[in-house]
Amino acid sequence: MKEALIHGKSKIVYQNHGHNENGSDTSLIIKFTDAITAGNGAKKADIAGKGRLNAEISQILFEYLADFGGIASHFIQAVGDGEMLVKQAEIIPIEVIVRNTAAGGFSRKYGVAEGTALDNVIIEFCRKSDELGDPMMNESQITAIGLASVAELDEMRRQALRINEVLLQLFSHANIRLVDFKLEFGRCGGQIILCDEISPDSCRLWDAETGERLDKDRFRHDLGDVLKGYQEVLDRLQYARYF
Amino acid sequence: MKEALIHGKSKIVYQNHGHNENGSDTSLIIKFTDAITAGNGAKKADIAGKGRLNAEISQILFEYLADFGGIASHFIQAVGDGEMLVKQAEIIPIEVIVRNTAAGGFSRKYGVAEGTALDNVIIEFCRKSDELGDPMMNESQITAIGLASVAELDEMRRQALRINEVLLQLFSHANIRLVDFKLEFGRCGGQIILCDEISPDSCRLWDAETGERLDKDRFRHDLGDVLKGYQEVLDRLQYARYF
Repeated sequence: MKEALIHGKSKIVYQNHGHNENGSDTSLIIKFTDAITAGNGAKKADIAGKGRLNAEISQILFEYLADFGGIASHFIQAVGDGEMLVKQAEIIPIEVIVRNTAAGGFSRKYGVAEGTALDNVIIEFCRKSDELGDPMMNESQITAIGLASVAELDEMRRQALRINEVLLQLFSHANIRLVDFKLEFGRCGGQIILCDEISPDSCRLWDAETGERLDKDRFRHDLGDVLKGYQEVLDRLQYARYF
Repeated sequence: MKEALIHGKSKIVYQNHGHNENGSDTSLIIKFTDAITAGNGAKKADIAGKGRLNAEISQILFEYLADFGGIASHFIQAVGDGEMLVKQAEIIPIEVIVRNTAAGGFSRKYGVAEGTALDNVIIEFCRKSDELGDPMMNESQITAIGLASVAELDEMRRQALRINEVLLQLFSHANIRLVDFKLEFGRCGGQIILCDEISPDSCRLWDAETGERLDKDRFRHDLGDVLKGYQEVLDRLQYARYF
């Protein structure tokens, strides 16, 4: 009965077979898998329990953003181990990267040491395309080839900056430095809503005191027990969300 | 006596040893050389006469932009075969690329066929760095690491769009399609002025009827007599400027 609509690198998306009052249901179920990849799929592994942790962390963050930031997302509710029910949205093929501190690809590409403070928050738009390697695009490029409108990009930037404000506060309560993170948005009922996930797979999260990496960089750079970092993030958020 | 201040890939910059009324002269002499390079210096050659043609074409374009666009540039006057006298400016380390039609790196990077029409003019900012490979940057990245201010980027974009308007008209009189071009700007006396060159080395120029390449792509892709293309551009501009 469960047929995958999308089989992503670390998530599987299914049609939900429930029914709403109109006899149809356009919601989806996302299953967070234990697969982890880096370098556009060049490095791969399975880490038992990772999917469940990412689902729980994403749920906390979506709920927190709704409650304290007024940010609408595709999240409806948790429906089981590592699964969540979400609204169906037309995904905008642009990844939005928010950076508070230089790290990762930004540091490599522009020769800026990891950990360097930035004079302002950076918002990057990248074309979502494994084939092209998710290249960065500026707004005039995106609108020139019709991937999104000026109004949509303005709205995505506005929401990304708001999400950053709210998450910076939450993560500071968790004693975690929010270095950077990736967002995806979708068109749904005339609105732009936050989609995909927010998890240690899509964020850089450093312990605020020690600088210890608690995110996917543990996998990318073989820094040791990946699951332990993710579990630490979940444990601290469980506490910080009620701060 | 002539000591090179900068020995670039296709230009040499000298201090001018003339004197102004204050007994000093901060102007510079740019010598356009016959050296031609592509792929960030990976492919190199000398094409006798190219420097002189680029100096003449740049002079025409700087004069035309001043007269018909109100664009201030570093150009003062021609001073000899392939040389021009220019104002000294502090070069902003950001290359500005203007695109009217998909081509070159844009086509490769984003999978858009060469010659594809764009829904709007594209303005790209790239960090001027041979070492880093002139990577594209967006405005929030540029200001975050202090390469230029928001006001400077706004002014560079405004001038780039104005330059494009004026050059599109001039080149249309020359029966040439202005596909894309690269600009550099400098800080000079509290103003942002147009610097460097505008020539077939820094533009893509296609014959409006046949699509024949009249620019450095003749060298990049071994399309035949490079000098003939550049000479054709000069000949047509000599006529079109008085249209």
